[in-house]
Amino acid sequence: MAIEIEKPSVGLSKVAVSETHGEDSPYFAGWKAYDENSYNESSNPSGVIQMGLAENQVSFDLLEKYLEEHSEASSWGKGAPGFRENALFQDYHGLKSFRQAMANFMEQIRGGRAKFDPDRIVLTAGATAANELLTFILADPGDALLVPTPYYPGFDRDLRWRTGVKIVPIHCDSSNNFQVTPEAMEAAYLSAESMNLKVRGILITNPSNPLGATIQRSVLEQILDFATNKNIHLVSDEIYSGSTFTSSEFISIAEVLETRGYKDSERVHIVYSLSKDLGLPGFRVGTIYSYNDKVVTTARRMSSFTLISSQTQHLLACMLSNKEFSENYIKTNRERLTMRYDMIIKGLKNAGIECLKGNAGLFCWMNLSPLLEEPTRERELALWKIILNEVRLNISPGSSCHCSEPGWFRVCFANMSEQTLEVALGRIHKFMEQRRRN
Amino acid sequence: MAIEIEKPSVGLSKVAVSETHGEDSPYFAGWKAYDENSYNESSNPSGVIQMGLAENQVSFDLLEKYLEEHSEASSWGKGAPGFRENALFQDYHGLKSFRQAMANFMEQIRGGRAKFDPDRIVLTAGATAANELLTFILADPGDALLVPTPYYPGFDRDLRWRTGVKIVPIHCDSSNNFQVTPEAMEAAYLSAESMNLKVRGILITNPSNPLGATIQRSVLEQILDFATNKNIHLVSDEIYSGSTFTSSEFISIAEVLETRGYKDSERVHIVYSLSKDLGLPGFRVGTIYSYNDKVVTTARRMSSFTLISSQTQHLLACMLSNKEFSENYIKTNRERLTMRYDMIIKGLKNAGIECLKGNAGLFCWMNLSPLLEEPTRERELALWKIILNEVRLNISPGSSCHCSEPGWFRVCFANMSEQTLEVALGRIHKFMEQRRRN
Repeated sequence: MAIEIEKPSVGLSKVAVSETHGEDSPYFAGWKAYDENSYNESSNPSGVIQMGLAENQVSFDLLEKYLEEHSEASSWGKGAPGFRENALFQDYHGLKSFRQAMANFMEQIRGGRAKFDPDRIVLTAGATAANELLTFILADPGDALLVPTPYYPGFDRDLRWRTGVKIVPIHCDSSNNFQVTPEAMEAAYLSAESMNLKVRGILITNPSNPLGATIQRSVLEQILDFATNKNIHLVSDEIYSGSTFTSSEFISIAEVLETRGYKDSERVHIVYSLSKDLGLPGFRVGTIYSYNDKVVTTARRMSSFTLISSQTQHLLACMLSNKEFSENYIKTNRERLTMRYDMIIKGLKNAGIECLKGNAGLFCWMNLSPLLEEPTRERELALWKIILNEVRLNISPGSSCHCSEPGWFRVCFANMSEQTLEVALGRIHKFMEQRRRN
Repeated sequence: MAIEIEKPSVGLSKVAVSETHGEDSPYFAGWKAYDENSYNESSNPSGVIQMGLAENQVSFDLLEKYLEEHSEASSWGKGAPGFRENALFQDYHGLKSFRQAMANFMEQIRGGRAKFDPDRIVLTAGATAANELLTFILADPGDALLVPTPYYPGFDRDLRWRTGVKIVPIHCDSSNNFQVTPEAMEAAYLSAESMNLKVRGILITNPSNPLGATIQRSVLEQILDFATNKNIHLVSDEIYSGSTFTSSEFISIAEVLETRGYKDSERVHIVYSLSKDLGLPGFRVGTIYSYNDKVVTTARRMSSFTLISSQTQHLLACMLSNKEFSENYIKTNRERLTMRYDMIIKGLKNAGIECLKGNAGLFCWMNLSPLLEEPTRERELALWKIILNEVRLNISPGSSCHCSEPGWFRVCFANMSEQTLEVALGRIHKFMEQRRRN
């Protein structure tokens, strides 16, 4: 009998077999635990409550009301024209009406203190794609981007996986409320140099995910000065800019550039999205706003790989260009997020837990370091597992955000009803009580 | 006065400054000429007629009729539930109902001769993204994919730009109607080896763009055998599979695998899209169907960068799961494309022009080599310029498709009305008459 020699199976690329997609982090593991045993008030009251998902569900009724009253935005019913043109529209510039509406919306969020030119808006299928696309444009494989910690765990995938770019952390800590300092930036830069990495840019989130806080103007100035001195890029991811609790608390990098007369602005790029502020992650709407002409041209060409459905562009162009709707939405959404934030902070305080003072976002940054016997990543993850499996809350451990100080957790509060949030707070309260008794 | 030393401006990546985006080819230059002086029957009757755009506009009335009768597919009006869930749905698996509908539609197109498992369907924002994404998974930077010529000019961007992968052409010519042969594949493979490139796969379009013809079963068998012998991947881009003039004329690689009992199928990946067969390029719906579990898992993770709007998934899930609609659409669309094809072939024949015998697609492959004084790329492009600027038709020169035999042109016929097609044919007729007289 002939022995069949097994051929080696067909190989895949290094990118395909690498682990830089980052899905093995506790950030995603917690999601799986939630999926397998999801809380439901009536059918599964002892299930896991998802507090690891930065989703905004507090203002959906406003969107629903708009759609009820404006069927022209979403339906192509009898006699409605425009389906044909819309279905065919795949120009990578995007619908002009939509780019204009996006520019206006971004201005409204910033209280009119910054101007946006629709011709500088490049559309992408979500901020995930926007951040990756910018990385492809700004850095070569093996180069580095500096990112302040703690940072959004998805960046490990978005900035690194297919681009081959490295992230070098700028370590921040609680001593100054996790704000970036010139010293921390310089240390990160030196650290990159010592690893023979060429630093091409710095990427910040403002308001910060996971801190839930905006960056002060003076800090922004320092960051921009740092980027200018090193002659590197500055990417400002501002996807939570409409989710600051009051309009005046958020300073966009756009405003800093405005006061500097746009000097040196060609190194600055803003990322925005409607996933958080409007609560539409499924619609995949992201955008890059760059002050650099070459980046705009290149990003537009590259956006061929990640265009937004023209059907969705059409709906949102109608919705956002309705000033009455958008102004009311922004205002009401801020008020409701503030209420939610106050509710969770108060509830945690009652349980004996402190959070970083926040003013934005869909989450708070919770300090459980007093509960750790030792300030280590291992103890943090052990505590996280207890909270996931016994308290049955999925929160995100700081270590998944590369936080260098153990014991901090991101807790989301806008992806559920007030009732569910109360249940969650009740569980935490009980958990803390038990710990005190033991 | 202090002399201000100008700092070097901030640099971009090699990808950003490279020319591999391919937009400088005549393929895209012709589009610009059309944009600047577009034909319109009444307002600009002497403008350029766009015959360089593979768009399907012949069956839009069927889509419009469906939408009129099924407002539930597109509108979220009063009392309509589901907006909230849909707007939030960003799971990279995609809507289950939509994946199921896509699998069924792909089976219908193939006359039920191949089965598709919805769990192997990975959704992407268009076939552009699907092809790039597969390239990222199958090949490392500097590796090669073999692609038969003539090929879709966009592949130069999609397969190469951000991936760093090279395309090595498999040269085909008119001696055997541009069909791929084992000798041509072997020659391309040797050519890659001589350049020290590692060949990772072969990518075919079936039906072929730009040939407008399907690949015979025997040729598909040879291609699969070649891929197996070399232990490389086979990507079959079948985005025109629903646009073959009769169902029986198209053999999918899926059918070949079926008859082989799926032996060695882990090297095979199919790309599909609704841009051509349904005429919805603006909706950005592409898909990868892979027989390789690891590719499915990785592609799904990677699809985070290029997800389809859930609004659009919802609409198309409704539309395609309506069997009455989809069966009638496929049948009627085939009939109409056949009529269009017959019309253009007859019109060109009357003008004294022959085309490759086609049986699929939205274009024909026109032979103007008898008009060239010498068989060179330069003469071909000179003729193309005359046709663009004097006859005012934008057609795509074979050289933009890397065709090694000068004088062939791709001519699209489904992106316009019959009346406009008649005007275009009239212009060609007149042009050929004049040439004969001179």
